[in-house]
Amino acid sequence: MAVYTEVSDEEMAAFLREQYDIGELVSAKGIAEGVENSNYLIRTTQDSFILTLYEKRVREEDLPFFLGLMDHLAERGVPCPRPIHGRDDRALRRLAGRPAAITSFLEGLWPKRIQPFHCAELGRALARLHEAGTGFALSRRNGLGPADWPPLYEQAADRAHEVDASLKPLIEAVLDEAARDWPTDLPQGVIHADLFPDNVFFIGERLSGLIDFYFACNDFLAYDLAVCLNAWCFERDRSFNVTKARLLLNGYRAERPLSQAELDALPMLCRGAALRFLLTRLYDWLNCPEGAYVKPKDPMEYAAYLTFHRGVASAGAYGLD
Amino acid sequence: MAVYTEVSDEEMAAFLREQYDIGELVSAKGIAEGVENSNYLIRTTQDSFILTLYEKRVREEDLPFFLGLMDHLAERGVPCPRPIHGRDDRALRRLAGRPAAITSFLEGLWPKRIQPFHCAELGRALARLHEAGTGFALSRRNGLGPADWPPLYEQAADRAHEVDASLKPLIEAVLDEAARDWPTDLPQGVIHADLFPDNVFFIGERLSGLIDFYFACNDFLAYDLAVCLNAWCFERDRSFNVTKARLLLNGYRAERPLSQAELDALPMLCRGAALRFLLTRLYDWLNCPEGAYVKPKDPMEYAAYLTFHRGVASAGAYGLD
Repeated sequence: MAVYTEVSDEEMAAFLREQYDIGELVSAKGIAEGVENSNYLIRTTQDSFILTLYEKRVREEDLPFFLGLMDHLAERGVPCPRPIHGRDDRALRRLAGRPAAITSFLEGLWPKRIQPFHCAELGRALARLHEAGTGFALSRRNGLGPADWPPLYEQAADRAHEVDASLKPLIEAVLDEAARDWPTDLPQGVIHADLFPDNVFFIGERLSGLIDFYFACNDFLAYDLAVCLNAWCFERDRSFNVTKARLLLNGYRAERPLSQAELDALPMLCRGAALRFLLTRLYDWLNCPEGAYVKPKDPMEYAAYLTFHRGVASAGAYGLD
Repeated sequence: MAVYTEVSDEEMAAFLREQYDIGELVSAKGIAEGVENSNYLIRTTQDSFILTLYEKRVREEDLPFFLGLMDHLAERGVPCPRPIHGRDDRALRRLAGRPAAITSFLEGLWPKRIQPFHCAELGRALARLHEAGTGFALSRRNGLGPADWPPLYEQAADRAHEVDASLKPLIEAVLDEAARDWPTDLPQGVIHADLFPDNVFFIGERLSGLIDFYFACNDFLAYDLAVCLNAWCFERDRSFNVTKARLLLNGYRAERPLSQAELDALPMLCRGAALRFLLTRLYDWLNCPEGAYVKPKDPMEYAAYLTFHRGVASAGAYGLD
């Protein structure tokens, strides 16, 4: 939660004037959101935009994929930030020593109390994103897929018990299950891979924006649904809301039908998605500097979700007929 | 630099809908600026605004003074944030357990590289602020005036040498000078008391906004000029730019003439203003938690300014004829 790279107003005004045709800068405010990059909400004489400076956690060689993808999706009607191209037609350039890009500003509010209608809208938007991703020329490996979980766990294994004694046996059991049962031939494409509520904007009951494509990659499309089932369908008491899950899945299926193989794989995909977030949260929790400004998220939340998914026998548990 | 109190988008939308007539909330971003309060840049279907939640460093009993002052000044044409009154006509209310207010959003950029024209504009705006403050019904004591410097110094005295061996003799000499020579009967009124470049917005060469009135108080008007001479007229190498000082003072005098007594007092007022910022920076430097997110400002900068002012015999050194 921060602006890591400070850019003076003058530097930003000159950057806009020299590189872009989007008007003169009239206001710039660093946004206290996002843990990966520095974001400024800027206003010019023409419109509002987001200026992003990419910090070290985003690999520079991935930026053409992320920005190209947003271009590709925006052209196809997905409500995502649209990269603004400069006079030289490039969207990616440098500012204050960091890779930098300007994107369109999306209005909307992200929901903190998830209502069922949010899930229905989300399902439709996710399917449209998947359809729109077809034909995107670049590809990017999922850096947090099944092959990456064992080495990620290795970095936390001998301290997992400091968080909770149940973590070690739980994680090791699911790593075994994934090694054995992870699907191999589901429909693939570009996925968002991190579509949490704070990355989805609504105006009233209408979904108005999908943001933060910096985990996007190529993987099973249904894995994106599994991420959303975890991120949107559990209540604060960690119980699973099957009504929300049904609306999410049916919203999705109304735009892009799910194959029987995808439905069959859903419980395993949900376990994998829960494990992926459990592992990164566990790592962040154990490696959080004393007195850090950003409090890490509780890994036990995802341990509870994972335990739920391990009890699921078929996609019927997610509200499907 | 932070949003300390997090307010969900829903909570904010409900707050606006129930209390104000400024349209529906369509966007809210926490701003990573300011160390005193939590600020959100919000957009409604009507306009942009700043929502401020007042944190512990601002005393709640002072808020009617600050908000009332902004109302008073804005009505008289000072380009400052205008408090938005709710349906019950109140500007100050509570949100997320904190005192909260919404003000108008001011466009503009704050200058990092101060140019002479900035100083001329600033001088005029400061004088107009002082004139417009006349007749404001409330008053507030300057909590960082000469009487407050000795107790503030006491809290840092036995560790001042950790920063630099020169600080102790310098500060103690100026405390003696202030006790002896501080003026007693200059024109008084409402002053801003903290008009640093990051509190002054420009659009091109035009001053477009004065913000952050949370140190405003009643004191000698010329003391505000002394704060600005310190904050705007030293170069990065800590040399004093007399051209900027002349433009600042002449800009001021074009709107509000300075009396001979004010001119005579200027060197002492500048020493006092430099001491005030030296003391608070010294305190913050010595009391900064290990690994703090906000790096405290170097107190030695103001020690250098103070030494300059101690060598000044008359206001002529500030560029006046």
